[in-house]
Amino acid sequence: MTKIVLGLDFGSSSVRVLSMKLESGELLSSIEQPYTSGNNGVLSSDNIHLARQSPSDYMNSMEIALQKAKDKNMKAGIEMSAVAGIGVDATGSTPLPVKHDLTPLSDIAAFKNNLNAYSWMWKDHCSYKEADKITEVISRIRPVFLDKIGGAYSSEWFWAKILHCRNIDKKVFDAADTWLELSDYIPAVLTGKKDISEVKRNVCAAGHKGLYSNEWGGFPDREFIKELHPDLLKVLKSLPEETFSIEYSSGELSAEWAGKTGMQAGIPVAMGILDAHAGAVGSGIKEGRLVKIIGTSSCDLVLGDLESGNSGIQGVAGVAADSVLPGYYGIEAGQSAVGDILNWYISGLLRNTRTHAELSREAAKLKAGESGLLGLDWNNGNRSILSDPLLSGLIMGQSLQTRDYEIYRALIESIAFGARRIIEDMERQGVLINELVNCGGISQKNELFMQIYADVMNKPMKIAATDETVALGAALTGAYAAYRAIGKDITYRELQDKSCKIQDRIYQPDTGSAGVYDKLYQLYLKLHDSFGIEGTNTGLYSVMKELIEIKNSINDLN
Amino acid sequence: MTKIVLGLDFGSSSVRVLSMKLESGELLSSIEQPYTSGNNGVLSSDNIHLARQSPSDYMNSMEIALQKAKDKNMKAGIEMSAVAGIGVDATGSTPLPVKHDLTPLSDIAAFKNNLNAYSWMWKDHCSYKEADKITEVISRIRPVFLDKIGGAYSSEWFWAKILHCRNIDKKVFDAADTWLELSDYIPAVLTGKKDISEVKRNVCAAGHKGLYSNEWGGFPDREFIKELHPDLLKVLKSLPEETFSIEYSSGELSAEWAGKTGMQAGIPVAMGILDAHAGAVGSGIKEGRLVKIIGTSSCDLVLGDLESGNSGIQGVAGVAADSVLPGYYGIEAGQSAVGDILNWYISGLLRNTRTHAELSREAAKLKAGESGLLGLDWNNGNRSILSDPLLSGLIMGQSLQTRDYEIYRALIESIAFGARRIIEDMERQGVLINELVNCGGISQKNELFMQIYADVMNKPMKIAATDETVALGAALTGAYAAYRAIGKDITYRELQDKSCKIQDRIYQPDTGSAGVYDKLYQLYLKLHDSFGIEGTNTGLYSVMKELIEIKNSINDLN
Repeated sequence: MTKIVLGLDFGSSSVRVLSMKLESGELLSSIEQPYTSGNNGVLSSDNIHLARQSPSDYMNSMEIALQKAKDKNMKAGIEMSAVAGIGVDATGSTPLPVKHDLTPLSDIAAFKNNLNAYSWMWKDHCSYKEADKITEVISRIRPVFLDKIGGAYSSEWFWAKILHCRNIDKKVFDAADTWLELSDYIPAVLTGKKDISEVKRNVCAAGHKGLYSNEWGGFPDREFIKELHPDLLKVLKSLPEETFSIEYSSGELSAEWAGKTGMQAGIPVAMGILDAHAGAVGSGIKEGRLVKIIGTSSCDLVLGDLESGNSGIQGVAGVAADSVLPGYYGIEAGQSAVGDILNWYISGLLRNTRTHAELSREAAKLKAGESGLLGLDWNNGNRSILSDPLLSGLIMGQSLQTRDYEIYRALIESIAFGARRIIEDMERQGVLINELVNCGGISQKNELFMQIYADVMNKPMKIAATDETVALGAALTGAYAAYRAIGKDITYRELQDKSCKIQDRIYQPDTGSAGVYDKLYQLYLKLHDSFGIEGTNTGLYSVMKELIEIKNSINDLN
Repeated sequence: MTKIVLGLDFGSSSVRVLSMKLESGELLSSIEQPYTSGNNGVLSSDNIHLARQSPSDYMNSMEIALQKAKDKNMKAGIEMSAVAGIGVDATGSTPLPVKHDLTPLSDIAAFKNNLNAYSWMWKDHCSYKEADKITEVISRIRPVFLDKIGGAYSSEWFWAKILHCRNIDKKVFDAADTWLELSDYIPAVLTGKKDISEVKRNVCAAGHKGLYSNEWGGFPDREFIKELHPDLLKVLKSLPEETFSIEYSSGELSAEWAGKTGMQAGIPVAMGILDAHAGAVGSGIKEGRLVKIIGTSSCDLVLGDLESGNSGIQGVAGVAADSVLPGYYGIEAGQSAVGDILNWYISGLLRNTRTHAELSREAAKLKAGESGLLGLDWNNGNRSILSDPLLSGLIMGQSLQTRDYEIYRALIESIAFGARRIIEDMERQGVLINELVNCGGISQKNELFMQIYADVMNKPMKIAATDETVALGAALTGAYAAYRAIGKDITYRELQDKSCKIQDRIYQPDTGSAGVYDKLYQLYLKLHDSFGIEGTNTGLYSVMKELIEIKNSINDLN
């Protein structure tokens, strides 16, 4: 009987179920099931920083997706009883408050109408003040943490969100017995955990978002947490001493979920992993291969040698041992808005009177440098290398002849310059990068974008063959768990070699354009440093800050 | 019999004929007749810098407009024989090449298809390289000129255009016996001049555009002109030694034009004047009253005391004795794009999917500082105070929530900051400004714009009562000539007091907004100086220059 494995990918607006043949590594089927609550699964409020999700959405959509996968695989003659392992990835940091028995607070009647009791989605930025406070406390009493988080704690991360909840909604905070990352919650449910003390937490989310590192003995110490807020000690106490990489399984499929799905009880469910990191695994990440996951934002993942001691890298979003592949540091950097900037331009500014396709077609006719425009890609702040959410977008060089498609191209170019800045900074710090593989929606869909990337970085851009590298990465963790469950020795490299292919089409840099972009990049760096780095004597660093201060002071008055 | 006077206003896309009762100063009628060639009278080519007009358009539209004025006035019982004087204003520097007998080259068959034989409109920027050369020569051998031209010669001006013609089209250059400013050509035609040696040239265009000043004995000396190009000596030789203000008449209406129009031959035609300067006269300009003419670009005019010796003012577009009102320096500054920036945004960028009215209505709901945006109003370079056409627009502070109407407001604010910078610079140099009167389309139509002006400058904004201050100014020169022709002593002050009214509605600054704008203006100054002034050690001055250089190098390749 042909064995298969499943990759369950909990994204921002849907869950995917990817079925893969275990032995051959071939894809069998893929199902996407949207969340139904709110706007594409995102619950929002008047607060523009708020983004929540409903835990019951995850469950409902997963059940439907599994049912559809069952039907689809059946047509290929494969039953759910053939599933030998399950892998799970999810967005993050997306923590949800739960009771001792893992019941999400949002399932309790008293909290049903309280968005603070729901999942706090990765892109929820309500806790930007708490993030600043955490960075301040780290800088003051635990500077050793800084190296692992790229120099600043983010409002998107675990502790900032929980601290914010403590500050603005003590009832929810008090009612929560712990907070689980979504990438831990799903495996815990599937493996039938009855108490939060049984839940195994994944090192990927813990390391990149939760300040977990073996270098300081696990999660942060009591003194540090107390300095953030004494009430957080309760949360710290609920966290385990150890976390686990995707070498491990989180448990075995429960009888309940076996019954619901037709799978066999007892098959292994791998440790969870963050979605971007799963995408890197599914893109065949290995030493020297940087994987860029390019979507609404972007995530750059590359491996660092655990033995080299280069665990502290500046200007990245995070460094965590074993977070991507066991035996390596996972080094994560990223740009806080990529597709989001282009979507903003088209829907927010041009009000959808133009399409990506139209603007791309017209912008593609321009040569590098021809528009005379230059921009800073900071509409959503700068994650890497500046770790500064209080930066903003800029575009310059406009004449009275400047056209909409020229600005569209300049926005793409500014994003590409930002991407080059990240890679150059990693290389300067000794990270080995000899190959770039791109995945995610934009890499598959936007040829102009990828050609500009190739020209700006003057490097070939390779594209993952599948547009489901994330779910594929999850499936590979399921496969790894399946082999281990039957005692077979296997490496991720072997699994990747079977499944992770590159498109034949490689975007090669155009020499002429690359030369022009070299010049423009020097100008980009001047803007980047002037507006982004304190103390460069240009007097301009303060301008973006003061604009935001003034804006906030006006908003506070209203 | 009620006497009337006519003001003929040759604008960028039409001619206006304003009829005014001589004694009461009341407006009788107004006719606007568009030019018919090209795009609203503007002839263009592949070269985006090129903007020409057809001399025959001026004649045809003037004849039609005079006929319509005749019909309209007749309904009020007033015949054309009642016209006692004519005033003429025109855009400038708008020189046209003519033969000895005043025939425009464009009327000659051999040149009919050659745009260089037509009028070179004020906004033609083909000669930007020649302007740089002229500035270089001035700086090197005639630095005394610098004080009168605000520090740099412009590509919009007389000598730059003629030198460019010499450089790119020697046939046209050689065929021209002289070049006439449009504001001299029209009066010369109306007064029946048969030879270019008979043409009187107005001090307004000569002083502001042609480097004419009594301080150095008229037009520039031979040595200077030879240094620009020896061939230009021919043009210099064709220019008169003396020029005249609007205290003088340029001659008497010819029998030919009397016959065409029904006016009486022999009535005086006043000396011509540039349109902006006519607008200042028609807005009641007097000591301390700065007149802002706000349209596609803006022109600020204020009077300087001829006795004070403050003839040299930095950062303005020009200073010329008697150029506005006799007995004063006319001090002219300006912004090279105002309405043009808003029109660019709506038609060039938003492709007319939004209207000024809609965006203004939405932008008006924002408070000062609320958008978090800041811009530089340099999409068409900076005329004052930087005299630098090679600057470009900039907008910063964008988030993913930034909306189109917020950028619209930020563009207006950036223009207002630019306007404040000009006024502060004049005041610093001792120019008396105790009142601001605005005229031109935007001042009449855009309430949001005028309120932002009041708030940014923290000064009341007064608006001229009529939207035809330019044609009114021309009519006042006609009235002055009419009184002088019958030997009656009159002053411009007396004429202005009768005709130049201010609207009851005065835009008063809002204290709260003014306070916020004070802060934003400080940030604007940082950007202004960093990108606009060489040697401020920010390293950013070169960025706009290099972008333009790169852009040009790409365009040159194509």
